[in-house]
Amino acid sequence: MFREKIKILDCTIRDGGLINNHDFDLGFVQKVYRAISAAGVDYMEVGYKNSKKLFSSKEYGLWKFCEDDQIKRVIDNVKSNTKISVMVDIGRVDIDDVKPADESPVDMIRVACYVKDIDKAITMANHFAAKGYETTFNIMAISRDNGTELDEALDQIEKESKAIAVYIVDSFGALYQEPTEELVKRFKAILKTREVGFHAHNHLQLAFGNTIEAIIHGANFLDGTIYGIGRAAGNCPLELLIGFLKNPKFDIRPILDIISREFIPLRKKIEWGYIIPYAISGMMNEHPRAAMALRQTDRKENYKDFYDDLLDSR
Amino acid sequence: MFREKIKILDCTIRDGGLINNHDFDLGFVQKVYRAISAAGVDYMEVGYKNSKKLFSSKEYGLWKFCEDDQIKRVIDNVKSNTKISVMVDIGRVDIDDVKPADESPVDMIRVACYVKDIDKAITMANHFAAKGYETTFNIMAISRDNGTELDEALDQIEKESKAIAVYIVDSFGALYQEPTEELVKRFKAILKTREVGFHAHNHLQLAFGNTIEAIIHGANFLDGTIYGIGRAAGNCPLELLIGFLKNPKFDIRPILDIISREFIPLRKKIEWGYIIPYAISGMMNEHPRAAMALRQTDRKENYKDFYDDLLDSR
Repeated sequence: MFREKIKILDCTIRDGGLINNHDFDLGFVQKVYRAISAAGVDYMEVGYKNSKKLFSSKEYGLWKFCEDDQIKRVIDNVKSNTKISVMVDIGRVDIDDVKPADESPVDMIRVACYVKDIDKAITMANHFAAKGYETTFNIMAISRDNGTELDEALDQIEKESKAIAVYIVDSFGALYQEPTEELVKRFKAILKTREVGFHAHNHLQLAFGNTIEAIIHGANFLDGTIYGIGRAAGNCPLELLIGFLKNPKFDIRPILDIISREFIPLRKKIEWGYIIPYAISGMMNEHPRAAMALRQTDRKENYKDFYDDLLDSR
Repeated sequence: MFREKIKILDCTIRDGGLINNHDFDLGFVQKVYRAISAAGVDYMEVGYKNSKKLFSSKEYGLWKFCEDDQIKRVIDNVKSNTKISVMVDIGRVDIDDVKPADESPVDMIRVACYVKDIDKAITMANHFAAKGYETTFNIMAISRDNGTELDEALDQIEKESKAIAVYIVDSFGALYQEPTEELVKRFKAILKTREVGFHAHNHLQLAFGNTIEAIIHGANFLDGTIYGIGRAAGNCPLELLIGFLKNPKFDIRPILDIISREFIPLRKKIEWGYIIPYAISGMMNEHPRAAMALRQTDRKENYKDFYDDLLDSR
C-alpha cells in the first residue's frame, strides 16, 4: 500500500503516558525519538500541553506539560526529519504557554475534543494556527458520539478552521471494520479539503485491522505506537503499520530494535495489550475506566463477574 | 451479525496441542468441553487422528491420536449439543483406525492438506464420508499456495467430494483484509454447493479482523480458540468472535470464566500470542518455524537480527 500522502504519527510517549502519569525519563524519550527518526516516521507526539496551574508537576511527569525546553533536550543534536506534535485538551491548556511556532520545537498541535466542544476547539485551533502551527482535530469517543451533531461539527471544521487533518478517535476500542468504513466515508464526504486521520485502540484486537480499513477508504493520517503501547489495550502497533505500508521511506529495523531493548522490559513494569476486561469494555462500547479500575484490584482476573457487572450498570 | 448458517468450531485443544505436543490432561480437556458446550459453540476439535505406528505415545499426548475411548471419557455425562471434530493429515492417519461414525463419538473429520495433495485428500475424505462422518477440507498455507492449481483443486472438491465446507487456512498468518476478501470470493465462486470456512493465525494481530472480513464476504464456518491459543501467535480468539456475532445461541460467559481459571495460568507456562518474531514471519509470508526455533534460544528477543536473517534467507 504505497500512497505518497500517508503520514504516520507516532504517539508512543503521549498515549503511553496515560498509563504512567506521563513519567517517561528523558533518556527513554530520547531513545524513542532517535528510533522514530531513523525509521522515517513523519511525526512524533511527545505528550500533552497542560497548564501547570491545573496539574501538579509533583504528580505528573514531564510529558504532561511538554515544555519547549524539555522537548529541545530530546531532539537537539539528532539528525531527523520527524516533526514534533503535542496534544491539547479543551480547558486544560493555557494558550499563553504556547509561543509562536518559529520560537518553539513543536510543529503541530492536535486538539482533542468531543463533538459538543467543537466551537471551543475551533477557536483554540485557529489561535494555534495563527501562531504558525499545523493543527488537527481529534474527535474522541466516536463510537458513541456520532449523531447528526457530528456532521455539523465536521462541516464547521471544514468551513471555519485551518486544520490539516481531522482524526476519528476510537477511544473505547469499540469499532469493527464496517463502522470504521462508514465513518471514514462520512468524514471524507464533509471534509473535502482536509485529510482524514485514524486513531485506534486495541481492545478488540482490531486497532491494526481498523487502521488498514481506514487506509483502504482514504484516511491518510495514521496513529501508531511502538509495540502498541497506550491506554488500556493500547494502540495500533507502529511496527505492523510500517510492515503493511511497504513505503520505502520507512525503515522497520530501528523500531524492532527499540522494542527488544526498551519495550519488552517496560511491558514487565506497566500493563497494556490484549486483556479481557478491556475486550469486554470494547464489546459493550463502554469507556475502559471500569476495566482500568478493576485491574488495580485483586479481582483483576475475574472476567465473568466484571462482564455481568458492566452489563448491569448500563 | 446474526446469520443462521454461521457455525463456530473451537480448535483450542487441536491447534493449542501444537505448542505442547498435544499433552493436555484429561481434566483440562473436560473443562474446555464443558465450557464450549455451555457457550453453545457448534463444534469442538479435540486433536489429530494420527497413527500410533507413525508417532510414539511416549513423545506425544493423547490428543495426537484422539482415540475414541479417550474422547468418550471427555464427553460422557456432559449435556451438550456440541459436535466433536478431529483433524487428519495426509499420510499420517491409518484409515483402518477410524470406525464407522455410528460407533464413534466423532461427528466430523477435517482433512488438512496442501493444494498439491488434493487427490489424496479427496480419496480420504470420501472414505470418511462413506463411513458416515461430516467432512471438510482445510487448505493450508493459502497465502503462498494460491496459483491456478488452487482453482482446479476447488473445482475438483466441488465435483468429486462430499465435503460440507472448505476452509481457507492462513497458516503463515500473512493475510491482510484485501487478500482475505479476494480468497473468500474466489472460493465461493467455485464451491457453489459448499460452505467456505476460515482459519486464521494471529501473527499480524489480524486473526479476528480477517475472520470478520471472511464473514462479511460469506464465509460461514469459522475457527476460534479460547484466549487465542494456538501455534506461534495463535488463532482467532473465540471470545471476540462470540462477542461480535451477537447470536443468541452463544453465551460468552463460560468462555470468560475458563479463561480466568485455566488459560491465564496456562499462558504463564506455554507461549502464544503477539510476539514480534511471529509478526516478522507474517510480514514476510514465511512459515513460523524459524521464529518458533528462535524462541527456544537466548536470542529470542533479538528482533532486528532475526528480521535481517529471515530477509537474507529468502
